[in-house]
Amino acid sequence: MSDCLFCKIIKGDIPSQKIYEDDFVFGFKDLNPMAKIHHLFVHKEHTGNVNELVETSPKQLADVYLAISKFSKESDLEREGFRVVTNVGPNAGQTVFHTHFHVLGGERLGHFGS
Amino acid sequence: MSDCLFCKIIKGDIPSQKIYEDDFVFGFKDLNPMAKIHHLFVHKEHTGNVNELVETSPKQLADVYLAISKFSKESDLEREGFRVVTNVGPNAGQTVFHTHFHVLGGERLGHFGS
Repeated sequence: MSDCLFCKIIKGDIPSQKIYEDDFVFGFKDLNPMAKIHHLFVHKEHTGNVNELVETSPKQLADVYLAISKFSKESDLEREGFRVVTNVGPNAGQTVFHTHFHVLGGERLGHFGS
Repeated sequence: MSDCLFCKIIKGDIPSQKIYEDDFVFGFKDLNPMAKIHHLFVHKEHTGNVNELVETSPKQLADVYLAISKFSKESDLEREGFRVVTNVGPNAGQTVFHTHFHVLGGERLGHFGS
């Protein structure tokens, strides 16, 4: 989508610190990290949130989680442990409406609720 | 798995507060809620974490997220917003090694990192 921040990042129109890319998925560092490691993984196809993503294409959901799995095995994340978070709508504080998965790690993680 | 807490909950051998069930997925209230709404969604087939889940069966991953989507539409969660979290390994504090997805909502959610 032409007015989507993450679509622009995927296309390279807005710079990012890329940490992963394959044919379907793009991964980059979160600009406001909540942990020592805080990356964002997004599918290159635009959807607004994970409900829309899984209903549009279960394959896209698998593409993203397979990318996270691959990345976690190639780094220390799988061995040390990591968290995957996706936020939908106002109570979760979703601010960019291109489905994205936060991958957090690098230290002991804490609370994830209210 | 015979010694898995969540497999026992799915079978009904250990009681739980069930909030969702279909052919593939079981949902129940978390006993130590981190938000006003805090449910756990698990696939009935045992896997140890989400890396194993998606590598074993992308369909199982879609089953779980489709169940969460359906549940969120039938409750107020989708409209109000919600968070989905899955933890892998020590840094994320994974304590039950049957892949599970936390679904949180019912109020404004906060930080989800360290």
